[in-house]
Amino acid sequence: MDNYTVIILGATGDLTKRKLLPSLHALLSKSGSKVLIVGAARGDAMVHALLDDAAPFIQKKDDAAWEQLRSSFHYQQLDFTVAKDYVALEKFVCQLEKKYNMSGKRLIYLATAAHFFCTITENLSISGLAKRVEEKDSIWNRIAYEKPFGHDLKSAHEINECIKKYFYEYQIYRVDHYLNKEVVANIALLRFTNIFFEPLWNHRYIDNVQIILNEKIGVESRGGYYDSYGAVADVVQNHMLELLALVAMESPAKLTGDAIRTERAKVLEKVSVVEGFLGQYKGYTQEKDVPVDSTTETFAAFRFAIDNRRWTGVPFYLKTGKKLKKKETVIHIRFKHVDCLLSKDCPSEPNYLTIRITPDATFTLTLNTKKIDKTNEVSPVKMEFCHSCHFGDVTPTAYETLFEEIVRGELSTSVRFDEIEYAWKIIDNVREMKLPLHLYEVGSLGPKAALQDFSNKHGIRWRE
Amino acid sequence: MDNYTVIILGATGDLTKRKLLPSLHALLSKSGSKVLIVGAARGDAMVHALLDDAAPFIQKKDDAAWEQLRSSFHYQQLDFTVAKDYVALEKFVCQLEKKYNMSGKRLIYLATAAHFFCTITENLSISGLAKRVEEKDSIWNRIAYEKPFGHDLKSAHEINECIKKYFYEYQIYRVDHYLNKEVVANIALLRFTNIFFEPLWNHRYIDNVQIILNEKIGVESRGGYYDSYGAVADVVQNHMLELLALVAMESPAKLTGDAIRTERAKVLEKVSVVEGFLGQYKGYTQEKDVPVDSTTETFAAFRFAIDNRRWTGVPFYLKTGKKLKKKETVIHIRFKHVDCLLSKDCPSEPNYLTIRITPDATFTLTLNTKKIDKTNEVSPVKMEFCHSCHFGDVTPTAYETLFEEIVRGELSTSVRFDEIEYAWKIIDNVREMKLPLHLYEVGSLGPKAALQDFSNKHGIRWRE
Repeated sequence: MDNYTVIILGATGDLTKRKLLPSLHALLSKSGSKVLIVGAARGDAMVHALLDDAAPFIQKKDDAAWEQLRSSFHYQQLDFTVAKDYVALEKFVCQLEKKYNMSGKRLIYLATAAHFFCTITENLSISGLAKRVEEKDSIWNRIAYEKPFGHDLKSAHEINECIKKYFYEYQIYRVDHYLNKEVVANIALLRFTNIFFEPLWNHRYIDNVQIILNEKIGVESRGGYYDSYGAVADVVQNHMLELLALVAMESPAKLTGDAIRTERAKVLEKVSVVEGFLGQYKGYTQEKDVPVDSTTETFAAFRFAIDNRRWTGVPFYLKTGKKLKKKETVIHIRFKHVDCLLSKDCPSEPNYLTIRITPDATFTLTLNTKKIDKTNEVSPVKMEFCHSCHFGDVTPTAYETLFEEIVRGELSTSVRFDEIEYAWKIIDNVREMKLPLHLYEVGSLGPKAALQDFSNKHGIRWRE
Repeated sequence: MDNYTVIILGATGDLTKRKLLPSLHALLSKSGSKVLIVGAARGDAMVHALLDDAAPFIQKKDDAAWEQLRSSFHYQQLDFTVAKDYVALEKFVCQLEKKYNMSGKRLIYLATAAHFFCTITENLSISGLAKRVEEKDSIWNRIAYEKPFGHDLKSAHEINECIKKYFYEYQIYRVDHYLNKEVVANIALLRFTNIFFEPLWNHRYIDNVQIILNEKIGVESRGGYYDSYGAVADVVQNHMLELLALVAMESPAKLTGDAIRTERAKVLEKVSVVEGFLGQYKGYTQEKDVPVDSTTETFAAFRFAIDNRRWTGVPFYLKTGKKLKKKETVIHIRFKHVDCLLSKDCPSEPNYLTIRITPDATFTLTLNTKKIDKTNEVSPVKMEFCHSCHFGDVTPTAYETLFEEIVRGELSTSVRFDEIEYAWKIIDNVREMKLPLHLYEVGSLGPKAALQDFSNKHGIRWRE
C-alpha cells in the first residue's frame, strides 16, 4: 500500500481548489493509499473552508473518500520568501507524519507562480522539507513545478540552474498536465501501435496539421496572473507545443522515461515560427487586475514549420484564444487530396484524422464514401471512436493521473528541461517578431479580418 | 421520362417473386418512369397470383406503385424451347406496347437456368422480341442474363459464342447483382477517393484478406437447381470472385463502363487456387430434389493467390457455406503486425478494415487505443461507419439498382465475358483438385476438423 505525504504550496489558489484537491479525492476514492496532505500558503485559511471551496469541483463525490480527505488534510500559513516559515512547516509535517505513521515519502507540489520556484526550492532544501534522495533509496522526495516554467528562455534557465543545485533531476517534475490527459497519452499509442498510420504520417500524405485550443471563458479571477503572461506563454509554450511534439515526434524506443522525452525534445528543437498574429478580446482591459492600457494577447495564431525530413513543407497551424465562440481543444490532421480521377465530385474532400481533447475525448476519421443511389458520387462521412462511449465515465482526470505517475516515479509525465528550453526559444522568437495585435469580438472565432488575411495568404481552411 | 418494357423470362420462379417484382415496385414508387412489364414462363399463371406471391418481399409497400405494378404487369405462357411461343409473345408485347404507347425500348431479363440462355437468345432474335440495335440508336434492346453464366468454362464459352451471334456486346448484361449492392459499389470509391488507403493497400501492409459468405438457410425449394451447381459454382465463381476483384484490382481510369471491367478482369486473370476443402451439411441428401448419394458441396473454403506485384505473398481466403451459424457476407482486410516495441501488450492486435455487406452494410476499422487508466497498454476498438445509420433506410436493393443501371446503359454493372472466363478457369482448376468433402453440423461454422487443420496449416485466424 502506498503511503506518502503531499505538500501543496499555494494551497489557497485556484489550482488547488479546482484540480489538486478534487484529484486527491479521486485518488483516495480509487486506491487504498494512505495519504497525508499538508497545504500551505500566505493567507490565513481554514481547512474546512478550503475543502468546501473544492467540493463543487469534485465530479463523483464519495463519502468515504471525502471523510478521508477531511481527516488527512492540514493547513499551515507560510510566506514563500520567509525561511523560518519553512522550518516551522517542516516541524509541522514531521509531527503529522509521526502521528499518522507515514513513510516519509513526500510529493511537494508548487502550485505557485514561477518566480517563486527558486526561493521555494532553496527553502525546501534548507528546511529539510525535501531532501536530496538517491534514486535507489526506498524513500523518495519529489517536487512538482506547475507550468509555465518561467516566462521566457532566460528566466527558465535561471530557475532550472537554481533548482538543480538542490535536487537530482529525477526528483524534479516539470508539470504539463496535458500530457496526463488520457486522449493525449493515447496519441503516441495510436501512432505507434497501429500499422495503419505508419506510411501516412509524413509530408507525402499530410497536407497540414491544425492544433486548436479555444476557450469560451475569459481571464475570470486570474486577470493579474494572466496579464503578465498572455496566451502565448500561458498555453502555446507548454500545452500546444507538447501536443505538436506528440503528433510530430519520431517513434521513441519506448513510451516511458527519458525515451519519449528525448523524441519530444528532438522535434521541438526543429520547430520554428513562420508567421502569426495576436488578438485581444474587446473588454479585456476592463477586467479585474488588468491594466487599462494592457497590450497582452488573449488570442494567437501561428504557422510553424518543422525542419526535418518527415515534415518538409508541412505547415503546423496553432490557434488559441479566450472568450471565443466555444470551448474546444482539438488536433486536425489534414491529408492531401487524392489524385482526382474517379469520382464525379472532384476534388473530393480530403481525409482528416481528428483528435479531440476537450470537451469530449474522441478520435475521428473523415473518409469519402459513396452517396446512396448515386453513381460515383461521394460525400465525406465520419468514423468516430469516443472514449467515454467506449470506456464509460471512468476516465481519470489529468491531475489524478499526474499524481499517480509522480508517485510511481514515471518521468515521461514530466517535461524535461530541454523541451522547455526549445519551447521558450520558439516563443522568444515569436516575441521578437512584434506581431500585430487585433481586437476581436467576444463570442467570435477571433479577429475576423486578420484571420481572413492569414487564411487567404496560407491557403488554410480552419476546420471549425 | 423513361418509358420501357421489361420482359421477364422465368416469371414464375423464385427470383421474380423475391427480387425482380419487388425491385420493379420500388422503381415505380421512386421514379416517374412509365414501365410495361410482361412475364413469361412455362406454367399457367395468373398475374394477381404472381403479384400476391411477390408482395411479402416488398419492403415498403406504396399503394400507388402497387396499383401501377398491377395494371402494368401482364403474363403469357411460353415454353423456352418452342419457337412459336416467342412469336406469340412478341405479338402480345407489341399489342401492349401499342396500347400503352410505349417507346419500344426493351429490357429482357432471363431469370432462367443457364442452359436455356442460348435457345432463348436465339428465339428472342428470330421472333423479333429483341433486335440488334445500334448503340447510337435512341431505341435500345438490352438482355440480362442471371448468374451463373454456364456451369464451367466450356459451357460458358458455348453460351457466349451463341449469344454474340445475335446481339452486340453492349446489349448484353451478364448479371452479378452483388456488383449493384451499395456497399459493394462503394469498395472502389472507398479505395480510390481516400488517400488514406493508398499506401496501405498492398503486400507490404496487408497480411491477408478474408472473404466470407455464410448463409443460415439451406437449399430450401431450390434443391434440384442447387445440386447441379454446388457452392463453388453458385457463389464462389461469381459473387465472391467479383468481391475479390474489387478489393484487389488496380485503380481504373474511371469507375464506369469498360474501364473498371478491364481492371476486374486483369486481376481475376492472375488469381489461382492454392488449397481448399469442401463440405456438405448433414441432412443435405434428404432435401427435396437432391439425390440421396449427392456429393455436391454446400460449403467451400479456399486459399487463393494473386500473381502480381501488389499482392505477392498475400493469401486471399474465401469461405462460404449453407446452414451455418449465421448469415453474413463480409470482407476482412487484415493488416500486418506493427513492430512491437512500445506497448506492453505485444504483439498488439493487428489492424483490420472490415467491409460488411450483409446483414448490415458497414465498414469498420479496428485500431488499438490506450486502455483507460493504464500506462502503455492498448486494446482494439472499432470505428464504424454504418450505411443505414448515416443514410437512413433509403438504400436501394441490388436488383433495383441493377434495373436502373441497365436502363441507363451502364455496362460496368454487368460482368464482361473475360471476367467470367477467368473465374471459370479458377473454378475448373478447383474441380480438378478433387478436394475432399467433409460433412458438417447444421448451425456450425463448417466442417470442424477440416477447418482446424486448414487454419493451423495456413496460420489463419478466421475473423468470425
